[in-house]
Amino acid sequence: MHWEKIDEKIKLLMFEARKMALESFDTKLNIKTKSNRNDLVTNMDKTIEKFYIDNIKENFPNAKIMGEESEKDQLKNSKDLFFVIDPIDGTMNFVKEKNHFASMIAVYDHQKPILGYIMDMCNGKLYWGGPNIGVFENYKKLEAPRNSKLEDGLLGMGLPMILNDEFNMKEIAKQTSGIRMYGSAGIEFIHVLKGETIGYVSKLHAWDYAAGKILAETLNLTVDAIDGSDINVLSSKIVLVATKSAQAQINQLIHA
Amino acid sequence: MHWEKIDEKIKLLMFEARKMALESFDTKLNIKTKSNRNDLVTNMDKTIEKFYIDNIKENFPNAKIMGEESEKDQLKNSKDLFFVIDPIDGTMNFVKEKNHFASMIAVYDHQKPILGYIMDMCNGKLYWGGPNIGVFENYKKLEAPRNSKLEDGLLGMGLPMILNDEFNMKEIAKQTSGIRMYGSAGIEFIHVLKGETIGYVSKLHAWDYAAGKILAETLNLTVDAIDGSDINVLSSKIVLVATKSAQAQINQLIHA
Repeated sequence: MHWEKIDEKIKLLMFEARKMALESFDTKLNIKTKSNRNDLVTNMDKTIEKFYIDNIKENFPNAKIMGEESEKDQLKNSKDLFFVIDPIDGTMNFVKEKNHFASMIAVYDHQKPILGYIMDMCNGKLYWGGPNIGVFENYKKLEAPRNSKLEDGLLGMGLPMILNDEFNMKEIAKQTSGIRMYGSAGIEFIHVLKGETIGYVSKLHAWDYAAGKILAETLNLTVDAIDGSDINVLSSKIVLVATKSAQAQINQLIHA
Repeated sequence: MHWEKIDEKIKLLMFEARKMALESFDTKLNIKTKSNRNDLVTNMDKTIEKFYIDNIKENFPNAKIMGEESEKDQLKNSKDLFFVIDPIDGTMNFVKEKNHFASMIAVYDHQKPILGYIMDMCNGKLYWGGPNIGVFENYKKLEAPRNSKLEDGLLGMGLPMILNDEFNMKEIAKQTSGIRMYGSAGIEFIHVLKGETIGYVSKLHAWDYAAGKILAETLNLTVDAIDGSDINVLSSKIVLVATKSAQAQINQLIHA
């Protein structure tokens, strides 16, 4: 199947999902906790995930799906199209801020990444593309960010990284221009793609980084598991997306 | 002088300052460091500060001014109008992200706070008001945020607070719904005013918190120096703005 046909369908789905999420601000959310009191899921996460899955299955009957809230197929078994979906990334922000949350879809064909999508839901900006087409913000093609050094840029980070001082993160933080915490992997990836931050490091699930990894690597950024695990096996790990220079410096500091 | 006349002038100044800042994205900034390598000042900080000062002096000849980059009059000596100005708050974000920075003005009359202004420069949203008129986002009047508890909300924080674990901040962070770091006091104050976060704590200069304090207190939020110093003396200190419930909980944890 030609990528344009897949792309056209996914964009329709994501702009519809955005509409559903924004309209839900006028209704009362049903909020539940998952692994801990700050790991939330709402009826909208589930509604949008079902909407994605139903439509993907209808349009691409042979496709397999890995989703945050339900289906958990594995990429390594896939022999056709494979979708990784995150209906609402940054559910805490969705609930508390009604801002700074994203929806994400990654598409693989015979286990090769072909398309990634991150929708900044409140701004209505879709970051999308893939290795063969480049990366776009809606219709505007993005340039690859400058290969900035650690000391010349802001670094996005998940709170536990610094609370627990894992992987020498306090020292790494001190060497940056500053730390930012936006509370959504999708929003953090967008900042790196645009060159606003030089990187982002956090413990992430596969659906938190799959789309961002495809887009970041297309823009010559590196995406690695800093605990040494294989990033190509889609599973939970501590992921660093960064410029090549910043990644080299962070890797040195991790092992210092 | 009636507050409407002051208000009208300041709004004109701030929307003009916004135009100057956004137009500067097309030019090359002149960037210098101040107290340390991450404390930046640009030609635009200085240009906008001069623009504010010249216009304030022209319109209010008896007014005294405290500014980030130049004039340092003191509130306690003021017997007329007193302005605290911050031309660009979040200069690092202005330089690196071209987003998430603010411009702020606070106005006192005979040492009493009367008007506060925080302009979200990229979004073009002005948060303004004072004890006698309430707080507005452009033309929309804001409701006072719910009096949420620490465990029910996101808390904005400056990085050093958690890096140095000052005032038991790691434990405080763990008790929240999550920590956010936006890198601009003005932007952080806006989140608290809108009830998106339940508070913000950071080491701040007078011009970082003067306007936010006037707006926050108008919305029934508390603004305190957590090191016990007098918040009404405008100087550098560790400032907490928060809901009353969260402030009480944080104060207990600081002394636990």
